[in-house]
Amino acid sequence: MGYKEESNLVLEELNEALHTIREEEVEQLVDMICSARKVFVVGVGRVLLMLQAFTKRLNHLGIEANYVGAIDEPAITDQDLLIVGSGSGSSIVPLEIMKIAKKYNAKIAHIGSNVKSPMSEYEDLFLRIPCKTKLDLQDEIDSKQVMSSLFEQSLLLLADSVALMIVEKKQIKDIHALWEKHANLE
Amino acid sequence: MGYKEESNLVLEELNEALHTIREEEVEQLVDMICSARKVFVVGVGRVLLMLQAFTKRLNHLGIEANYVGAIDEPAITDQDLLIVGSGSGSSIVPLEIMKIAKKYNAKIAHIGSNVKSPMSEYEDLFLRIPCKTKLDLQDEIDSKQVMSSLFEQSLLLLADSVALMIVEKKQIKDIHALWEKHANLE
Amino acid sequence: MGYKEESNLVLEELNEALHTIREEEVEQLVDMICSARKVFVVGVGRVLLMLQAFTKRLNHLGIEANYVGAIDEPAITDQDLLIVGSGSGSSIVPLEIMKIAKKYNAKIAHIGSNVKSPMSEYEDLFLRIPCKTKLDLQDEIDSKQVMSSLFEQSLLLLADSVALMIVEKKQIKDIHALWEKHANLE
Amino acid sequence: MGYKEESNLVLEELNEALHTIREEEVEQLVDMICSARKVFVVGVGRVLLMLQAFTKRLNHLGIEANYVGAIDEPAITDQDLLIVGSGSGSSIVPLEIMKIAKKYNAKIAHIGSNVKSPMSEYEDLFLRIPCKTKLDLQDEIDSKQVMSSLFEQSLLLLADSVALMIVEKKQIKDIHALWEKHANLE
Repeated sequence: MGYKEESNLVLEELNEALHTIREEEVEQLVDMICSARKVFVVGVGRVLLMLQAFTKRLNHLGIEANYVGAIDEPAITDQDLLIVGSGSGSSIVPLEIMKIAKKYNAKIAHIGSNVKSPMSEYEDLFLRIPCKTKLDLQDEIDSKQVMSSLFEQSLLLLADSVALMIVEKKQIKDIHALWEKHANLE
Repeated sequence: MGYKEESNLVLEELNEALHTIREEEVEQLVDMICSARKVFVVGVGRVLLMLQAFTKRLNHLGIEANYVGAIDEPAITDQDLLIVGSGSGSSIVPLEIMKIAKKYNAKIAHIGSNVKSPMSEYEDLFLRIPCKTKLDLQDEIDSKQVMSSLFEQSLLLLADSVALMIVEKKQIKDIHALWEKHANLE
Repeated sequence: MGYKEESNLVLEELNEALHTIREEEVEQLVDMICSARKVFVVGVGRVLLMLQAFTKRLNHLGIEANYVGAIDEPAITDQDLLIVGSGSGSSIVPLEIMKIAKKYNAKIAHIGSNVKSPMSEYEDLFLRIPCKTKLDLQDEIDSKQVMSSLFEQSLLLLADSVALMIVEKKQIKDIHALWEKHANLE
Repeated sequence: MGYKEESNLVLEELNEALHTIREEEVEQLVDMICSARKVFVVGVGRVLLMLQAFTKRLNHLGIEANYVGAIDEPAITDQDLLIVGSGSGSSIVPLEIMKIAKKYNAKIAHIGSNVKSPMSEYEDLFLRIPCKTKLDLQDEIDSKQVMSSLFEQSLLLLADSVALMIVEKKQIKDIHALWEKHANLE
């Protein structure tokens, strides 16, 4: 198959995944982000990269956000939000960090695929992207893509949709003015 | 606008952007990647994050790939490929690194939006994603999203389509076996 | 106090810390590194930065090394070595990663201060840098520096001493030739 | 040679390097850091890692600091300081970033070895660590260590001495209270 077929496959799977996400869960996430003093994100591998892209955008929108492990990572408090990305809900490092965040009474939003996972008892919000994980659950999109690509792509597009919702909620009129908060050295 | 409208907007823009990419340019990129001894990527900000996600996947597919600045970055040689991501084609750091790679006679593929840019004279392949950049050129998709989100999203989906093409080209039969090359510590 | 006094303080503390490290533990570490197929490092914050500097040098010396979480991180196997840096021996994320590495039967070397810690049962080698940790144990150097600076500095100098021992062990004659394995794009 | 000899070699070279640094240059650096609104650092390879360790500590001391390329990197302004680490003073990427910072009228401090370099015309302060670089200048310490290790080690110890000077200058009484600004999730 050539590029046209492959990119169509990707777009169709994304179309299905994004349409299955429940609107009210996304709205809750937007509310949690906008009422947090600081936002932290944690994940592993490509999921972390997508969350870092989200973090970068949140800073442009005037929301203080960072990833766990960043050079200038501050302490988390009960005023803050931790967003955890984990399809299976069983990645060990994010799970451990979730537990620590819980001890500090931070709010926790988990974006994943498995409705029931070891993360369930620690999360204040579960936002479901229904992609198939290694755990082979029912009721999921069975992607033809490599590994968890569909989850990672959905996460990025969800995050960028959330960014647009925040622009509206915070009534940011001039999107172009955002460049003033953008890094300017590279 | 709520999540449904925003995610539809994102998907429609992506649909347009991905369909405008020229098939032969993608095939050239696939060839360059598969014939390189090592692949390096360079970019700035969210573009770099998307290229790092690509890099991660290439390693899973058995292709040695890394980003410029990585802890274990080796020396580039004339057997290697540098993939540069820059919409405007004028980001200073990637441009300087492109020039150095050229001195070592590495092959250079540039993924960007502006057909004519300071990068043009150094690139062996220009793969165009026709998103509007800050430079306000004609003949581009005028995205309603925040900043360069459409370019970054397109880059990720293009890269994941390329990954699928490589799976086919290299006749990797068992996608699930790829997990064996996947990091297993987190 | 001015620069002279402060830098003297730093050097004196380092002198004490480095002299208390036991020679046979360092030799064991050198042996473990040289007989491993791949070396992984894990730590948190500034400790991780020091281990990443070590990782970079090991690659220059022809030893495949990477940090846990790197973009091109491969799977760990029973042929590999995990080096954990943790003064207290109780950092949760490194501890969890240690447990996973143990399941894959990788060798584990722990560089820390506390002789007895949750990490003790998983480590094949404990290399002690006797700096005071937050846990207030006896028999340690009570540094006047900020936080765990002395541990981090000692770790870097220990690692660079180990690099020199590896140069000798592997009979690398021409140190200047090492630049050929060095990144050349920035 | 065993560990004792190698670590003594390292300590002796560091002793010489740190004692040759001029006190007034360090004091100027401390002043520049304490009067900046934000501090940015840039460098390549192990030098960058040492500067990132410095950045981490500055944040603990209540000084907003980040490295160029960080996920949450803000825009630089004329109220800010850029610290460049480059022994030779000719690393291309840091040099280009220096030029951009200069356009925004940021203050620039360069820590390096070569008194006269392409960076000279852009720097407001040159702080010299007199280690031999690849350029083979006179009047420098000819280290027996691997590559530029001595420069990198000196940079870390200089930075940690500067941290102690800032503690005194800002009259931070309770060093232990600094842990409150420290990341707490890993």
